[in-house]
Amino acid sequence: MSASNLVAAPSDDALVNDCDIAYGQPSPEDVVPSRKLRLICLSSAGYTRYDTPAFRKLCQDKQIVVCNASGVYDEPCAQHLLAFMLAAARQLPEAAEVHAATRMKIAASSLRKPRSREAAAGSSETAADSHWPTTALRGQSRLLSPNQVVLLVGYGAIAKRIAELLVPFGMNVHAYRRSPRGDEIVPTHPIGTLNAHLPTADHVVNILPLTDATRNFFDTQRLATFKPGAHYYNIGRGDTNDQAALVQALVSGQIAQAYLDVTSPEPLPITHPLWLAPHCHITPHTAGGTHDEAGRQVAHFADNLKRFASGQPLRDRIF
Amino acid sequence: MSASNLVAAPSDDALVNDCDIAYGQPSPEDVVPSRKLRLICLSSAGYTRYDTPAFRKLCQDKQIVVCNASGVYDEPCAQHLLAFMLAAARQLPEAAEVHAATRMKIAASSLRKPRSREAAAGSSETAADSHWPTTALRGQSRLLSPNQVVLLVGYGAIAKRIAELLVPFGMNVHAYRRSPRGDEIVPTHPIGTLNAHLPTADHVVNILPLTDATRNFFDTQRLATFKPGAHYYNIGRGDTNDQAALVQALVSGQIAQAYLDVTSPEPLPITHPLWLAPHCHITPHTAGGTHDEAGRQVAHFADNLKRFASGQPLRDRIF
Repeated sequence: MSASNLVAAPSDDALVNDCDIAYGQPSPEDVVPSRKLRLICLSSAGYTRYDTPAFRKLCQDKQIVVCNASGVYDEPCAQHLLAFMLAAARQLPEAAEVHAATRMKIAASSLRKPRSREAAAGSSETAADSHWPTTALRGQSRLLSPNQVVLLVGYGAIAKRIAELLVPFGMNVHAYRRSPRGDEIVPTHPIGTLNAHLPTADHVVNILPLTDATRNFFDTQRLATFKPGAHYYNIGRGDTNDQAALVQALVSGQIAQAYLDVTSPEPLPITHPLWLAPHCHITPHTAGGTHDEAGRQVAHFADNLKRFASGQPLRDRIF
Repeated sequence: MSASNLVAAPSDDALVNDCDIAYGQPSPEDVVPSRKLRLICLSSAGYTRYDTPAFRKLCQDKQIVVCNASGVYDEPCAQHLLAFMLAAARQLPEAAEVHAATRMKIAASSLRKPRSREAAAGSSETAADSHWPTTALRGQSRLLSPNQVVLLVGYGAIAKRIAELLVPFGMNVHAYRRSPRGDEIVPTHPIGTLNAHLPTADHVVNILPLTDATRNFFDTQRLATFKPGAHYYNIGRGDTNDQAALVQALVSGQIAQAYLDVTSPEPLPITHPLWLAPHCHITPHTAGGTHDEAGRQVAHFADNLKRFASGQPLRDRIF
């Protein structure tokens, strides 16, 4: 194959017809008339719009192999999730809030005259309470420890890497997926059996892809079965949880902490109640990001190109 | 031994004279006249005031065994450090700052009338820029990765546990201590050789105990040899770094991020420049804390008591 036969840009859909290999996000419809296409390398880890019986059959009939880019995103997403879990356990956002408030207090005090002694004495805060809350924060600090249950809801490259990163903590990690294959590195169960296990979980990690079956998967009913005080994390897709139900679960305290990297829609409108929900921490869809993301994408594709040319097994083949 | 011979409170120093086993923080001076003392279990991981040639000789002469409580604190301190490293890599404080600013904006907008369209159009901020900075944060996000060098400065139970937690990341971890023993789980070197390695380090982790040799160990000169953009963490003792020099290194950018759990003094006065130093993140000496700290202390001491009574090797024996 020559380089000119490669389609690297998602906007060049019409060219799919003419090429051997497509890289990017080609429209499934454009694949229908293709005659020469043998390999599609998706530039994303998610592949919702390709994950249909019709498209799978089309690729099978035409003998087109499809890979995603989960090898680019599994590491940052897994590290992001562990960052979430440890930040929650070690009370980092709470400490950062105190630090920010201290900075504001310093800025304010540089603008105004010192309060009279009487006024200061009337305050119930002491210096230690307000800007150095050692006792309070230590008393809320937790560990990731072997007696805790972690449920990975959705099992793919990201969940596998999370399970690897969690090994030294010795936690009780289980995974759930549509069809367990038996090659998972933690005990893995059909997702239909999740409900029975949910009330035992200290940490529920949502890594679900978005499909008709997973839309609003974590709804009012399912969130109500969480162990009170559980931590909930979503690094999958915003539409797999009912956000109104999530706000309610945070307000009631059923869920003690939510760490979300995805919302619905994105950007989350400034008017959305999730911004003000208690103990809700949001990163703006950055879990998969790295400063060298483009380079990592190219390296992943180049590796698969070499493997394809030499007949070796491909990385992140999805069908 | 009877339970009445135990000293459990640091304030009961006078009783040390009469007992077989002391738990807590007995004054070294009170140990001098003791006749029956055979075991001291310190309630802390640090043991600066006991770590003198005179006290070591005293205990050797009197055949007193000394343990610290590092088994209580190694796990939380190590997890706190990994929380720091991952928060820095994944830009969690930066995302939290954006979230907090968004909350302020929502609060402010609920108090005032909407701006005119013209005024809004005159603003250079777009919604995506201000409250959903995906591109900016992804572009700053990093991984903990095999090509990075981590130096653990000080090697004991905490450093060992950090090294264990870092195993899945495959980073290039080295440790430094006064006298390497050969039983460390990462390559470990005499602390005198640290300077040659410092300019290669992406992550410098200060876990030094405070002694005459380590006071202001990270001073202007040593900080100047850091790789520009290095991350610096201190979960040891505040007095082992020169804080004025540290502020300078953060202002100049020589150190890209500092994560400190300890300062000098503690609480850090609200007037201290460290509060306002750029990219400086402070937790108020909470790294060793857990909500069940007292129970963990009792369990550790009870375990050593049982071991001592039955002649088994003790946990965390220091001399």
